Amino acid sequence: MIIVMKPKTPAIEIQRISEEINGWNIIAEKSIGKHQVVIGLIGDTTELEPSRVQALSSFIEQVVPIERAFKRVSREFRNGEPSVVAVPTPNGVVQFGQDFPVVHIAGPCSVESESMIIATAQKLKQVGAKFLRGGAYKPRTSPYAFQGHGESALDFLATAREQTGLGIITEVMNVADLEKVAQVADIIQIGARNMHNYSLLKKAGSQSKPIFLKRGMCATIQEWLLAAEYIIAAGNSNIILCERGIRSFDSQFTRNTLDLSVIPVLRTLTHLPIAIDPSHGTGRSEYVPAMAKAAIAAGADSLMIEVHPNPAQALSDGPQSLNPEQYQDLMAEMIQVSQASDCRTKLTPQSAVLTAV
Amino acid sequence: MIIVMKPKTPAIEIQRISEEINGWNIIAEKSIGKHQVVIGLIGDTTELEPSRVQALSSFIEQVVPIERAFKRVSREFRNGEPSVVAVPTPNGVVQFGQDFPVVHIAGPCSVESESMIIATAQKLKQVGAKFLRGGAYKPRTSPYAFQGHGESALDFLATAREQTGLGIITEVMNVADLEKVAQVADIIQIGARNMHNYSLLKKAGSQSKPIFLKRGMCATIQEWLLAAEYIIAAGNSNIILCERGIRSFDSQFTRNTLDLSVIPVLRTLTHLPIAIDPSHGTGRSEYVPAMAKAAIAAGADSLMIEVHPNPAQALSDGPQSLNPEQYQDLMAEMIQVSQASDCRTKLTPQSAVLTAV
Amino acid sequence: MIIVMKPKTPAIEIQRISEEINGWNIIAEKSIGKHQVVIGLIGDTTELEPSRVQALSSFIEQVVPIERAFKRVSREFRNGEPSVVAVPTPNGVVQFGQDFPVVHIAGPCSVESESMIIATAQKLKQVGAKFLRGGAYKPRTSPYAFQGHGESALDFLATAREQTGLGIITEVMNVADLEKVAQVADIIQIGARNMHNYSLLKKAGSQSKPIFLKRGMCATIQEWLLAAEYIIAAGNSNIILCERGIRSFDSQFTRNTLDLSVIPVLRTLTHLPIAIDPSHGTGRSEYVPAMAKAAIAAGADSLMIEVHPNPAQALSDGPQSLNPEQYQDLMAEMIQVSQASDCRTKLTPQSAVLTAV
Amino acid sequence: MIIVMKPKTPAIEIQRISEEINGWNIIAEKSIGKHQVVIGLIGDTTELEPSRVQALSSFIEQVVPIERAFKRVSREFRNGEPSVVAVPTPNGVVQFGQDFPVVHIAGPCSVESESMIIATAQKLKQVGAKFLRGGAYKPRTSPYAFQGHGESALDFLATAREQTGLGIITEVMNVADLEKVAQVADIIQIGARNMHNYSLLKKAGSQSKPIFLKRGMCATIQEWLLAAEYIIAAGNSNIILCERGIRSFDSQFTRNTLDLSVIPVLRTLTHLPIAIDPSHGTGRSEYVPAMAKAAIAAGADSLMIEVHPNPAQALSDGPQSLNPEQYQDLMAEMIQVSQASDCRTKLTPQSAVLTAV
Repeated sequence: MIIVMKPKTPAIEIQRISEEINGWNIIAEKSIGKHQVVIGLIGDTTELEPSRVQALSSFIEQVVPIERAFKRVSREFRNGEPSVVAVPTPNGVVQFGQDFPVVHIAGPCSVESESMIIATAQKLKQVGAKFLRGGAYKPRTSPYAFQGHGESALDFLATAREQTGLGIITEVMNVADLEKVAQVADIIQIGARNMHNYSLLKKAGSQSKPIFLKRGMCATIQEWLLAAEYIIAAGNSNIILCERGIRSFDSQFTRNTLDLSVIPVLRTLTHLPIAIDPSHGTGRSEYVPAMAKAAIAAGADSLMIEVHPNPAQALSDGPQSLNPEQYQDLMAEMIQVSQASDCRTKLTPQSAVLTAV
Repeated sequence: MIIVMKPKTPAIEIQRISEEINGWNIIAEKSIGKHQVVIGLIGDTTELEPSRVQALSSFIEQVVPIERAFKRVSREFRNGEPSVVAVPTPNGVVQFGQDFPVVHIAGPCSVESESMIIATAQKLKQVGAKFLRGGAYKPRTSPYAFQGHGESALDFLATAREQTGLGIITEVMNVADLEKVAQVADIIQIGARNMHNYSLLKKAGSQSKPIFLKRGMCATIQEWLLAAEYIIAAGNSNIILCERGIRSFDSQFTRNTLDLSVIPVLRTLTHLPIAIDPSHGTGRSEYVPAMAKAAIAAGADSLMIEVHPNPAQALSDGPQSLNPEQYQDLMAEMIQVSQASDCRTKLTPQSAVLTAV
Repeated sequence: MIIVMKPKTPAIEIQRISEEINGWNIIAEKSIGKHQVVIGLIGDTTELEPSRVQALSSFIEQVVPIERAFKRVSREFRNGEPSVVAVPTPNGVVQFGQDFPVVHIAGPCSVESESMIIATAQKLKQVGAKFLRGGAYKPRTSPYAFQGHGESALDFLATAREQTGLGIITEVMNVADLEKVAQVADIIQIGARNMHNYSLLKKAGSQSKPIFLKRGMCATIQEWLLAAEYIIAAGNSNIILCERGIRSFDSQFTRNTLDLSVIPVLRTLTHLPIAIDPSHGTGRSEYVPAMAKAAIAAGADSLMIEVHPNPAQALSDGPQSLNPEQYQDLMAEMIQVSQASDCRTKLTPQSAVLTAV
Repeated sequence: MIIVMKPKTPAIEIQRISEEINGWNIIAEKSIGKHQVVIGLIGDTTELEPSRVQALSSFIEQVVPIERAFKRVSREFRNGEPSVVAVPTPNGVVQFGQDFPVVHIAGPCSVESESMIIATAQKLKQVGAKFLRGGAYKPRTSPYAFQGHGESALDFLATAREQTGLGIITEVMNVADLEKVAQVADIIQIGARNMHNYSLLKKAGSQSKPIFLKRGMCATIQEWLLAAEYIIAAGNSNIILCERGIRSFDSQFTRNTLDLSVIPVLRTLTHLPIAIDPSHGTGRSEYVPAMAKAAIAAGADSLMIEVHPNPAQALSDGPQSLNPEQYQDLMAEMIQVSQASDCRTKLTPQSAVLTAV
């Protein structure tokens, strides 16, 4: 951490600040520039909050944290090695990670009925998806919008899992539902709106099911990694990060702005696997294929795509859902791009299942 | 709701859509423009989701919701009359609302010790604040940052209330803590990070303590009002809306961008009282006085300001906290501005307590 | 265009507005909903400004423009056909467009010396680029930063063109320099900071060299297309749109947020070719390859990439420049992705030159 | 400037970088932290570009510029003293500055006719405005929108000046028009869309008329001050900074987000006077009064407000224009707030004219 003092700060104030810091078992080292004095803090400053330092004196112009705020999720924490999230499903263990094939997750926004979710799952399995997504609990902006079928939807997902062998991924919205969701889900999703829900993150960290952590709609990359750090610090290191579009100044043609640059950025910052959700990212099904292929070309480890048997009848998110035929066509294209863009030998989706359990 | 069809949509498709809509007990009325056809939906479309309509056909260019998404929080719902949130405190009932004096809320970011919070409360009472704020549970971006003293902090707040008669406002971060917090708090705060936590909003709506609902850091005004709608729809209409700064592209000099224009905008949209938090809004104590006075001149019903007995030693948010002397000076200025800016006869803070309980 | 009236607007006011509009030779058609009246405007409203309509009455809640604000750049204007921008270069005509191979543009941020630009051009030609970029006039945020070598740099570019046959693309910053720039450039760039410089846009439209129009850093897609409309309305339809990253709330790890979703979005809105600049889009050379490949997979018609013979010594934009070897490696990967992602039969870069001139 | 090296950078690389920097006549001082090495640059680094340093090595994690990028506009440059922009008008010299009364500027968006602008000016003079605004050249998003009456409008402004004695402020959009505009205008406006037009800024700096520099719609405060630095570096220090609303994620109810916190922030950063334009800032006349009063309470030195004799008939910006009666009422309220909020003894508007010329 570095403290930049305002021009013309009295020497005695700099002295006072340095002593205060030394009292925290951190060495304060002064550098005198042409206009300003800079104090470098040497020692373990990872858990020191910049605002505490800033508050020491009104002569402080700026506090620059140079050690990363996140630790256990950082790439350095694993000496540069990517981590692998291995998820057992009835059809076998599926591995998410930089050196593994792209894992395909698909399904409707919400579970609307048993027959609907089973039929969808069967189709998706055929096409090559490894996981079925489907909301039982839906975070909706309006209290008057369809809120999901809750527990009964969890039962339908369990049946779909049984009948197809696909893994299940579904969202949890609060601490009280976590156990129930964990009984059915192979991967538990924490949605964009709950990325800052620290109580939920801690609870998710204290159990063992893998967590699919979506980026908050205006979360910085650092805040997102710190949300993951909450989970890992609580004991669960099976985390997949999922970009789903951020909020920008333009939402006339797309619902969000899908920030694909997180793929190369996260690759350097963290060991965790990276997923992309182009359905929420764009909000319009006609834009999904282009962005799905782009995500793969940029190196995504997993793709989550909304597929609904009849988007025109969907209870939620119809406009951004592909129908199964569109998904099948897209899968063929995605496989081609996977094969081509492979500097790091991503294998084809078919080989994603390594061993039967 | 209005449906704009793409140019050259086949007449038969427009027919099909119209029939689908008529099946929902809504009249679809077609207008044929020079280039495009527009379908107006006549009837009660308040609970109809635009995305459901959008999904009806890929020939739909745009769905324009023209009825407001929120109802019970709207100004129209009370025939244009503002609502009043009357909060009983040991010192008397304090009323928040357009036709009442500005209510001043102050206190430290977090409750650090019993003596600290009591001493602060005494000073604030003298200066003219009606409510003491102080965090027991703190939502922190990093898992390694100070997370608040939890239940023991609630006890300290209860003591401060007893000794000074100030009302207490403190944040709840999850459903499980709500009851505990409600036992101490006169007003329960839902913070910016939880504005989209719908489980918490519903729970907050199912109990009777007033709710201080902060705007999410990238929540639109409509989303914020819909969050309030969650609470009111669940049965609790005692809600105060608080702007605390939104996220913009520039955070070099301020932590957030305080959006004071919400004051006149919300005044036309909703009957609920409006509060401003210039401390989080700017993140720097030196900018708080200017923005506090601006908030009052713009017509805010309440001001929440962070005050700490010794900001340089604060465990959190030191840089944005005033010390008690600064707050006292600011209060004098705020009173002057209140008196001057009063087109709507805001009274002086002293007269905020109407009756002793 | 649609006018939404506030609830409880007097009938006489609606009458008055309708008559006013009828006076403009536009038919005002009233629809009475449950809570609100809506007036549809039938006739040619393309040149009618929403703000003029809004200003008619304070009882107007919202004016919804449903006809597109842009015309000649719209896809409909060419009956759904993409346009082709054919640029003669010494090495032959190069065609930009949806049905043509990806055109590769590369070169340094600024032209630093004659030898440097010639050596770079030779290398780029070998690798497969068709155009050499290089700034003579540089828009710099600080007046103290290197502002480009101006006219002498234009001479160096002319020499590089002669010696390699590559086309030249360079930026013009004001009307007075346009003629000079047009003498050397095969394509004239208008940069992000000048996208709203309407005087320059008009002038660019009144001459015949193709224009490479970068998106303003916070321009909406509609504003960007309207900037192109300025050029086309002034007579020049040879325009290539280039996305170079927008400004978002997070710039800790990337300089801008590269918005690749413009590719599928623009494809449906406009007939103009689409280019992507991942160098400015990310600001860091290590992120350029992933985003370049993603852009191609998403369907970009052209890629502009900063390449400098020695990025560590660059006078500007060093951190985002590849060196020639990195560019060569990336080209191999880009070709692979081009071949794979080709639903629309993009050919390989080598075949971009169709005929010698 | 400070260079933060990545963890585990080889010592020899740090040595190499240090030597490179020493070659620039800057001392590189190394501090070894627990995980990372930091190099402090001591000497005059004001004109050193961070990106040049960043480009030195891929082992550099971050370059932190700690000296301000702007110099002559900084508060320190005048030893903490505010500057005064004194503008001679027929009615006397008007002074803009921290220690002077709020200067009121008003008038229509565009000059529509001679009679209209004269009648407006007469009314504004009565009410207490010192300057008449009115656009001759209008930057419009669409090429099909009204572009202003150009030179003839300048003539009308000259007549209005003669007849009322008000100072004139009008916008220049390109270098070629500057001289013409300067012949009529007492203050020349550079609009938000041209804040990054460096050619225009340089030209504005090379003449002597005061410049009214609006903030770009997504310009950071630093970029805005650097735009002013362009003008001052070219020789003209008579600059007034004007905030007019920035672009945010929410534009449903307001056109822009008026960032009033720039008032206290700029006060600490620069000596230049600060103006606020609540008309563009909100885009709706009904929100203008609240924001105008807020601006004054926050300490603005000048207010620019759109006033049109008949907003419903305005050729541009009607919805955000007050009529003269509304402006008169607002003026009374603004004077009251001025008097109340005066910690720094802002005088009443009437006393703004100090001496007749």
